[in-house]
Amino acid sequence: MYKTLLVILDGLGDEYVKELNGTPLEYVKNEINNFNKLASEGITGMMYPIEPGVPPSSDTAHLTIFGYDMKKEYSGRGVFEALGAGLNLEEGQVALRANFGTVVERDRQLIVVDRRAGRISGRDADILARDLQKHLEEKGLPVKFIHTLEHRGVLVIKPEEGELSSKITDVDPHEVNTPIYASQPFENIGEEEKIKAIKTAEILNRVVKESYLFLKDHPVNAEREKRGELPANVVLTRGAGLITRYEPFKDRWGYKAAFVAAGPLYRGIAMALGMEPINVIGATGTPSTNLENKFKGVLEAFRRGYDFVFLHIKGTDNLSHSKKAREKAMFIKEIDKHLSILFEILDDTVIAITGDHTTSSVKGKHMGLPVPILIHAPGGRFDDNKFFDETDCINHGGLGFIHGRNIMPVLLDLSDRANELGIRTSPKPVFYIGAGGTPLKL
Amino acid sequence: MYKTLLVILDGLGDEYVKELNGTPLEYVKNEINNFNKLASEGITGMMYPIEPGVPPSSDTAHLTIFGYDMKKEYSGRGVFEALGAGLNLEEGQVALRANFGTVVERDRQLIVVDRRAGRISGRDADILARDLQKHLEEKGLPVKFIHTLEHRGVLVIKPEEGELSSKITDVDPHEVNTPIYASQPFENIGEEEKIKAIKTAEILNRVVKESYLFLKDHPVNAEREKRGELPANVVLTRGAGLITRYEPFKDRWGYKAAFVAAGPLYRGIAMALGMEPINVIGATGTPSTNLENKFKGVLEAFRRGYDFVFLHIKGTDNLSHSKKAREKAMFIKEIDKHLSILFEILDDTVIAITGDHTTSSVKGKHMGLPVPILIHAPGGRFDDNKFFDETDCINHGGLGFIHGRNIMPVLLDLSDRANELGIRTSPKPVFYIGAGGTPLKL
Repeated sequence: MYKTLLVILDGLGDEYVKELNGTPLEYVKNEINNFNKLASEGITGMMYPIEPGVPPSSDTAHLTIFGYDMKKEYSGRGVFEALGAGLNLEEGQVALRANFGTVVERDRQLIVVDRRAGRISGRDADILARDLQKHLEEKGLPVKFIHTLEHRGVLVIKPEEGELSSKITDVDPHEVNTPIYASQPFENIGEEEKIKAIKTAEILNRVVKESYLFLKDHPVNAEREKRGELPANVVLTRGAGLITRYEPFKDRWGYKAAFVAAGPLYRGIAMALGMEPINVIGATGTPSTNLENKFKGVLEAFRRGYDFVFLHIKGTDNLSHSKKAREKAMFIKEIDKHLSILFEILDDTVIAITGDHTTSSVKGKHMGLPVPILIHAPGGRFDDNKFFDETDCINHGGLGFIHGRNIMPVLLDLSDRANELGIRTSPKPVFYIGAGGTPLKL
Repeated sequence: MYKTLLVILDGLGDEYVKELNGTPLEYVKNEINNFNKLASEGITGMMYPIEPGVPPSSDTAHLTIFGYDMKKEYSGRGVFEALGAGLNLEEGQVALRANFGTVVERDRQLIVVDRRAGRISGRDADILARDLQKHLEEKGLPVKFIHTLEHRGVLVIKPEEGELSSKITDVDPHEVNTPIYASQPFENIGEEEKIKAIKTAEILNRVVKESYLFLKDHPVNAEREKRGELPANVVLTRGAGLITRYEPFKDRWGYKAAFVAAGPLYRGIAMALGMEPINVIGATGTPSTNLENKFKGVLEAFRRGYDFVFLHIKGTDNLSHSKKAREKAMFIKEIDKHLSILFEILDDTVIAITGDHTTSSVKGKHMGLPVPILIHAPGGRFDDNKFFDETDCINHGGLGFIHGRNIMPVLLDLSDRANELGIRTSPKPVFYIGAGGTPLKL
């Protein structure tokens, strides 16, 4: 049995970018020798995170890749955001991603100017969040709002009279020059759920309204405007999630897992599945992250006895969203430089490298196109692919086109942990190899 | 957001044909420069309409490609045939495809000699159909029979005393030198359904018997036999369908859709989904169709404000069924010539070209093999495929092997209409982009 490392380069897949005459990966394909070494010695392919044409969010993609069924087990994004932000959560609470945004008032409506408040960050956001929380408490609203990274924050609604529901629509309209919409219950839900959802949406809508009424006149925003920056004068929520318990990764796959990730969402996902954090200095969840420390963190995790490590690198996705294709290519080259840190564990570790989805550097958004994947496994099968880019993984990939849900079984198989189908002695084979049940006595 | 054109070349996929040293597409692969241009600039792959090894009928394939679930939503083929024939239908009626065929009487049985009555068409078929309808009315049968194209027709059974059922077997034995079988209820249906099905089958069996008794002595058939042609002396039915309402294409996918198609079946499918017809002069649903007008009809549809057009070309399938591989290849070259008509819309339109299934020019029948697909999208991803044929789409296709059910999501994604999974503001995300719910009032 081998150890297993899953490296997710967020938003790795891309479209053809005219300026680069290829995708970012194709543009640097002759300069990423460490990726190419692993691709040459390993097996490659393409991976549809969910299904062809379905653009996943990062959390739905990660959950699927970790082997959880989106349709049956997804709690909503807010749960991960809140966990990743370090909040203590209790079952029955509803957590939401809550970004600072910029709106203008027109005809009693709030029109979205910027969904990220000019990518506000640091002290400004901290002060605004702290003061807003005080204001919401004074207004008697049963919520907790905190700032996390850049323009991002988390809102938790606590149940006071009766249960809450996460079956409510987003306040964030997901585009600009459009009014903010009131949250409302999903259509097609039962009567009982609807009553809970109406109550939850009411609290949420009051929070959003109060956030505008309070933030619009806050001195921090006055100063921002003086400096020519956009004010953070509203909180835009999305991805309501009811705090629920996921089956632990260990119970499902048998691995004792740790993670190296800085982005709160990814930390939250890993924590929801019971993975243990390995915190490294300089990890930021942005292109300026300390890659060396992150890769060294992986080695540290294995040294501490974990047999599965999830390494998440976010910068690739950020640069795609900003349509910085060339910078994305350069960041991939940077990652390639540090990839050699892993070479000392090649003999006893299965290493998979892929993305959670395609983020087009042309359109600046997630797409449902497939993502290159490489898996380097001791004694693992070889295809004749020599490069880690889209075209070569398409034309020479020995895995073919797989789905996100296939990744965990493939990793179990290549790390010598899978039992043959049909001869399983238990629905949880990994745990019970040689240890399940009672020995037969003569 | 881009407009979307879906071109279905019926029965496009094929097998290796010895005489051509390849499939028809492979035979002309160096002569179809317009197809190749779109393939080179776009993304390609192979498409299994249903599942590997499952040969679809044209209607089940089209429905699946349009994103409807065959297992749950299929009404039966007759519904489409009747709609496509321009019949006014009412809920509760049962419609069937009803072909003219040729039988001989032997031991009081009717043995099928030809399932298409020597591909009878035109005036002969019109007269026979008109006179047969009169005869059936005189016999008091609650049915409507009309001739459509070539040997094809449609039979509609109207409910008189109690409800009808479409759960009845085909009268058409689907092969020659075999007796016609009486229609009977499906096995494994409930008691209530069985009573309806018995009644429906009884009416149908009387119609088929009367069709023989009446047509065998009809003067048109006497003349046909004098000319050495096969008589159309029976009506063979199949694909019973209960008139039902499909969820409109617009509600499901958000597109305002039109279609350019001549074959009644395809017109019927499009109409059943609420697509609007764009009728063009010279469209026949055969290899002699006016291709130029059909492609120009597509441009006209977009000019009229539709944002989705379904263009259907039937000739490829007809020639495969007749085992005319070389003619199929030549017809594909003809299509290629007119494909350039579409080049003026490349900048703002996603164009997908594929078949609904493989029709083997060797075996003359539908097969469950995959079909080449190309998608040209503005800013769309490039693989390094330069040709639109089976082998190149297999070896270089960046979509890999997808399924018919994936096509609509892929088109939504590439036309910038898809919402990320997990951030949906409503169960029907496409409709609610920027439009969901009520503006939040201050």
